[in-house]
Amino acid sequence: MLSIEPDIHPSPKVTQAIIEATQANKIRYTESLGLFSLREKISAHYHQNYNVTTSPHRIALMVGTSGAFLVTYAILLNAGEQLLLTDPAYPCYKNFSYLLNNQAVFVPIDETTDYQLTVEQLKRYKNIKAIQISSPSNPIGNIYDSDVLADLIGYCDKNDIYFISDEIYHGLTYDIKAQTALDFSDNAIVINGFSKYFCLPGLRLGWVILPENLVRKAEVVMQNLYISAPTLSQHGALAAFDEQYLVQVKTIYQQRRDFLYQALSQLFDIPVKPMGAFYILADVSRYTQDSLQFAEQLLSQAHVAVTPGIDFGQHRTQQFMRFAYTREIDHLRQGVTRLCNFLNA
Amino acid sequence: MLSIEPDIHPSPKVTQAIIEATQANKIRYTESLGLFSLREKISAHYHQNYNVTTSPHRIALMVGTSGAFLVTYAILLNAGEQLLLTDPAYPCYKNFSYLLNNQAVFVPIDETTDYQLTVEQLKRYKNIKAIQISSPSNPIGNIYDSDVLADLIGYCDKNDIYFISDEIYHGLTYDIKAQTALDFSDNAIVINGFSKYFCLPGLRLGWVILPENLVRKAEVVMQNLYISAPTLSQHGALAAFDEQYLVQVKTIYQQRRDFLYQALSQLFDIPVKPMGAFYILADVSRYTQDSLQFAEQLLSQAHVAVTPGIDFGQHRTQQFMRFAYTREIDHLRQGVTRLCNFLNA
Repeated sequence: MLSIEPDIHPSPKVTQAIIEATQANKIRYTESLGLFSLREKISAHYHQNYNVTTSPHRIALMVGTSGAFLVTYAILLNAGEQLLLTDPAYPCYKNFSYLLNNQAVFVPIDETTDYQLTVEQLKRYKNIKAIQISSPSNPIGNIYDSDVLADLIGYCDKNDIYFISDEIYHGLTYDIKAQTALDFSDNAIVINGFSKYFCLPGLRLGWVILPENLVRKAEVVMQNLYISAPTLSQHGALAAFDEQYLVQVKTIYQQRRDFLYQALSQLFDIPVKPMGAFYILADVSRYTQDSLQFAEQLLSQAHVAVTPGIDFGQHRTQQFMRFAYTREIDHLRQGVTRLCNFLNA
Repeated sequence: MLSIEPDIHPSPKVTQAIIEATQANKIRYTESLGLFSLREKISAHYHQNYNVTTSPHRIALMVGTSGAFLVTYAILLNAGEQLLLTDPAYPCYKNFSYLLNNQAVFVPIDETTDYQLTVEQLKRYKNIKAIQISSPSNPIGNIYDSDVLADLIGYCDKNDIYFISDEIYHGLTYDIKAQTALDFSDNAIVINGFSKYFCLPGLRLGWVILPENLVRKAEVVMQNLYISAPTLSQHGALAAFDEQYLVQVKTIYQQRRDFLYQALSQLFDIPVKPMGAFYILADVSRYTQDSLQFAEQLLSQAHVAVTPGIDFGQHRTQQFMRFAYTREIDHLRQGVTRLCNFLNA
């Protein structure tokens, strides 16, 4: 159970679109910023879902959100300049910055701020060039409060700090809707993609929304690093905004979240109830102070796959584990049973 | 005419394989090194085509050869270390090295060595960590002589220099067969992919063959930068080694090469007869000393698209233009007619 890759298929409209594009031999490169028709669809998605107006010219298709992070950091930060990250956070952020010889600066976050970076914390750091957050977040599944997000983005705007918002788990939000950073400022840089909500990880297709003056820079870097995003993926993604289907995807994840949150709450302290993504971060300190060893034990002895907290940073991460609800409830139930047996043994 | 993106479709077996994989919803991530079955196919391809034995465990799938260059440079070179490139060369090599804060060192090459880097030249440079060449090359279309390649690789082996061989145009060779660098040393690093010979640029799928001790490093960097190469592309590529079809592709390009080389020889000096890839590098100095301006004139006045030499470096590149034979002969003929009219006007 609890393997981290989701088991939900994409909309059949997407697979049909890929098949048609393949039959039509649409496998040349696209323009580096991506098919303009897809950039228009994404623009329309922001209008419909957030009531935000963003020109398709500000949207660039990327090779996954992975590609979006690399290109974004490359155009924003020179070697040695500081990128501020939370600890814990998605582990690859820091690795992109290492590759580019940026300096990653880590701000510890925990339940004292509901795992949100705040302006108060931010003010302690000098010479920050850019900030990377995610909401809903990996590994916590929390969603930033509207006022916290507004304060952060306002502070960044005032202090010439680039604000990068990883919104890859948007759509997978269960109690409140996540706001896009574009709600607060057109200077915010938004990264999203088709791997999570749209159930299309293997397409390796993401996007970044940039202030107008950065688009050409992104195009140049994109062209040199990737030429263009995979072509059939782009044609498939044209059919991905299938709202009727996506509502079902969200409902499935919400049911899993409800089940697993309730079940794990009996076994562990869960500092923040996850409201998005497909993760639960649990405090396992009543059982261990070594999350990696605990993960190995759970895997080898209980046959349950859980990600150790230390994969996501150093701030109290030895006492946390990340559970993923990327399998159907019957599997989750079996996993919970195994966990109970292991912990009570 | 002469637009640089090829017009030849891939083998129908590939499109069929992609359709079947799509119908089976094979769109999760793959392992970061790629589908093992595809790595085995590539290994078999080396055995059949070069009589070279290379374990599939040494082969890593990448997001295009673009991804292969980035990952390879990232694992071989620290910031400030020197990557030796030829001038002219494929322009993105240096841009990958700039991104990684490596130091790109340029060795001018020209007709005095048949546009080959030689050990004699190489000896003039100190503290080189890695060398990047391509054969057949972009923009020249020349193929390295066996003894030049043997000397280079032998020198690199002796002096602990990584030798990186871009073999993306292998298969598209018309007079002699290109040898893989693996013929000379298992320390050589070979980069290739499905965009040229296999006619699948939009798949964004390449590979790198590494010495065993570098594979795990490549896996770690690949995983962080890309997660994995596009999944449907990998399934399609399983059917790409369709020798019967590929022979036809090669024949088409060879006929175009023969036509365009003969035609352009009437108008320009061509220092090296191209024996591979789909480019001809022509000395246009009897008409101009400004290749960019000449390219603009040809485009706007003669309606012929040609790439200016300066895109590929600084060594005498103002007097060269790169012609691509990526369109059918009727189009090439029309382009040549337009060129003649323009030059004689």
